Amino acid sequence: MFKDVTTEKINAVMQDAWTAFHVYRKASLKQRADFMRAIVFELEECGDLLIQTAMKETNLPEARLRNERTRTIYQLESYALACEKGDWLEARIDTAIPGKNPPKPDIRKMLVPMGPVVVFGSSNFPFAYSTAGGDTASAFAAGCPVIVKAHPAHPQTSAIVAEAILHAADKCNLPKGIFAHVNGVSFEVGKALVMHPYTRAVGFTGSYAGGKQLFDWANQRKEPIPVFAEMGSVNPVFLLPEKLRSAAADIATMYAGSVTLGVGQFCTNPGLIIGIESEALQTFIHDLGKAIQSIAPGTMLHQGIADAFVTKREEALMQPDVHLVAESAIAPSEKQGQPTIATVDGKTFIKNPVLHKEVFGPYSMVVRCADMKEMIEVAKHLEGQLTATLMATNNDVSNNDELVEAVKNICGRFILNGVPTGVEVCLSMHHGGPFPATTDARFTSVGADAIKRFARPVAFQNWPDELLPDELKNGNPLGIWRTVNSELSK
Amino acid sequence: MFKDVTTEKINAVMQDAWTAFHVYRKASLKQRADFMRAIVFELEECGDLLIQTAMKETNLPEARLRNERTRTIYQLESYALACEKGDWLEARIDTAIPGKNPPKPDIRKMLVPMGPVVVFGSSNFPFAYSTAGGDTASAFAAGCPVIVKAHPAHPQTSAIVAEAILHAADKCNLPKGIFAHVNGVSFEVGKALVMHPYTRAVGFTGSYAGGKQLFDWANQRKEPIPVFAEMGSVNPVFLLPEKLRSAAADIATMYAGSVTLGVGQFCTNPGLIIGIESEALQTFIHDLGKAIQSIAPGTMLHQGIADAFVTKREEALMQPDVHLVAESAIAPSEKQGQPTIATVDGKTFIKNPVLHKEVFGPYSMVVRCADMKEMIEVAKHLEGQLTATLMATNNDVSNNDELVEAVKNICGRFILNGVPTGVEVCLSMHHGGPFPATTDARFTSVGADAIKRFARPVAFQNWPDELLPDELKNGNPLGIWRTVNSELSK
Repeated sequence: MFKDVTTEKINAVMQDAWTAFHVYRKASLKQRADFMRAIVFELEECGDLLIQTAMKETNLPEARLRNERTRTIYQLESYALACEKGDWLEARIDTAIPGKNPPKPDIRKMLVPMGPVVVFGSSNFPFAYSTAGGDTASAFAAGCPVIVKAHPAHPQTSAIVAEAILHAADKCNLPKGIFAHVNGVSFEVGKALVMHPYTRAVGFTGSYAGGKQLFDWANQRKEPIPVFAEMGSVNPVFLLPEKLRSAAADIATMYAGSVTLGVGQFCTNPGLIIGIESEALQTFIHDLGKAIQSIAPGTMLHQGIADAFVTKREEALMQPDVHLVAESAIAPSEKQGQPTIATVDGKTFIKNPVLHKEVFGPYSMVVRCADMKEMIEVAKHLEGQLTATLMATNNDVSNNDELVEAVKNICGRFILNGVPTGVEVCLSMHHGGPFPATTDARFTSVGADAIKRFARPVAFQNWPDELLPDELKNGNPLGIWRTVNSELSK
Repeated sequence: MFKDVTTEKINAVMQDAWTAFHVYRKASLKQRADFMRAIVFELEECGDLLIQTAMKETNLPEARLRNERTRTIYQLESYALACEKGDWLEARIDTAIPGKNPPKPDIRKMLVPMGPVVVFGSSNFPFAYSTAGGDTASAFAAGCPVIVKAHPAHPQTSAIVAEAILHAADKCNLPKGIFAHVNGVSFEVGKALVMHPYTRAVGFTGSYAGGKQLFDWANQRKEPIPVFAEMGSVNPVFLLPEKLRSAAADIATMYAGSVTLGVGQFCTNPGLIIGIESEALQTFIHDLGKAIQSIAPGTMLHQGIADAFVTKREEALMQPDVHLVAESAIAPSEKQGQPTIATVDGKTFIKNPVLHKEVFGPYSMVVRCADMKEMIEVAKHLEGQLTATLMATNNDVSNNDELVEAVKNICGRFILNGVPTGVEVCLSMHHGGPFPATTDARFTSVGADAIKRFARPVAFQNWPDELLPDELKNGNPLGIWRTVNSELSK
């Protein structure tokens, strides 16, 4: 359906991006925000064509896509606001002390853009984590040009959004190299983009295999560059005893919904639910199974994802001592994912790393631990996670410090009495987590702090006021928060 | 003189660190600061023994070592203060909006400690970037245990400081695993420390070869970890025409001092001075050469560094079209570094990467460019740098935007009309820079922002006030700056 971009074209695109970087890096915060708002305008102009194209390419329902477009627009608008506000610049000023021995010079520091950012969009969020998604929005806010590699699962959708961005750039009189859209299915296209000397950072949302490969390439460069790969998670949920006794049925209902939301195609899908053997756990398993039986299979994003779900589900169910609890009573048709709950005991789980891996789709496994000690062992054996959840009373939390600390240690977002699905776009969000959830646990890909991924500090020493960037001038003409002689002020 | 630590010992040390981490991560900001101040007390108790031991091991003069001890104490004290203040935690709170559809949960984010940090001390700063130096101080502030590999060039100094830290830990009732000191000269010790599964981050100051090796090992781990390696720099200085015409002699005097300060053994030593062919440049070269002739050779840190200086100096001087301008009129004796100035034309420099490399010691090369265009080309051909300096009038800066931007793009600290030697310990300092100056241009190793290297964000979703960490509680009992619903406040 579409052809791989050629090496010549990649070189030309990267040269244009590098040239554009030298213009765009000097764009004021307001100019960057205006550009992002112009993209919003153009996206809205795309109207129903965008929704309908995405529906055809992704099998996602209309309401979900409309919500996702709203979210994408909210991301652009809120990051534009954050960009203008400038808190993210981490502006710091220490004024000179000429009388000191030796004299202390005036030093002022702020974040500056890194350079062209290559973005690999995700298949499961055709708008919010693709062409004009979170990575692109944060790179533009940071002052970086963006090169998007279209996701092969929704190339038309991606092309429509790319046109919208290019229109916006044109209207804002920004150089054309500020954004480029290239197609590629082969390995080589991704590699050429990551290895190009003008590429300064990479954003990715997708599989572990894909993200880890980009990370390895980036580190093999002559000059290694940061890769922000969000590679999914099993998002463990721990059912603590007192809470489970009081609310097994409610938790089962809540989680039947969360496990199957969007046919389980979220990186925050709860793929693991850990409890302690008890009557309450049996009730929970029973109720969850019953609820799952009544949930219809849904069509998955594309054939590859549907096939992978069948394969990984089967692989998990075939492991020794894993039992099927329930599956949807309605047989799945082609490309559909069948809601499924499995179970295994804690000892078997700890020993078998196959069971620690994500099964991307409407699947979850209940791990039955002998006691709290075993539950702690399970937590300690898990890899890094985007999220972890406790279903717990206050007593449960207070009385099980070792478990709470072990769980906190492996996750980026720590939820109490909720579900991990649903990622709020706000400054306090951390959508990241220890490896292998992401390649860099220090940065988030959701919320305006995501802007910081594409910037680095520069300290200006002994510059006169008139030559400093506005962000660092004595008069603070932009009115941003800055730390002046160790105290925050405006 | 000392033996490599065994693998068994490394495993035991890391197990102790991991155990201690689970205690220390919960230490309050005040407790961490108290511990750091207790280290200061113990260091002061070491008295002259510490200075005399370091003098014997490093050949550094007494005054310099006393100053460096003062600096080390200032680092500990100022990072302790910053730790308590809590700005570095990046606390963010977004309160719940239950009426939203779907309801928005309460989310609160802050940085939490990563885990045990392995620190490789430097040879040129036996106090400030070694055992109780900047990396150790920032890791303790972040809430992480530290394992120091003693630098083989000053093992006794390192052992005395290590004892001081252990005494302080003991007095503060902290678990013994919070700090460990191991010896090692071989490759294997470094590798075992970096590859150990309990190691969560690495701090290093030293050569490119050493730092890059640690970085590669860290990325080859099953779970890659961050490496903060500061690997030195040539710290280019650009002499702009108007400034040079007005102050050639003064700049020569200033730089003769900076090039030879501490026998040139600073990572910020100006190894490259770039000017445009002119009478003023000839005057500058002449005056710089004359000043260098009158500066006596000094004893270098150890035989290895003195040998490397001789080899690299010779290698640079042997390159085609490189000319010796001047060297110290006093012949160096054993282990001494001879102050040296060389020169080369811009075209030759651009073509020969050997000339872009650091010659660690009292050496600098003046690059004579044909014109501003060539000076810009030189800037664009340089690798990443800790610092870059412009000697320039305001007119020079305003009229040469392309040069200014090209230089800013390659450096972490951008100095105007000063020298790069001398690194202030303050929040606005950025001691970092694009690869290969460091392995991570986003973080500084000097100033309290260095604390952030050893922490990662965790978002708490839907936690009741009483179960949240004090840093995130509604009442803000610690009185720290936090961003609440997108606005900074106390």
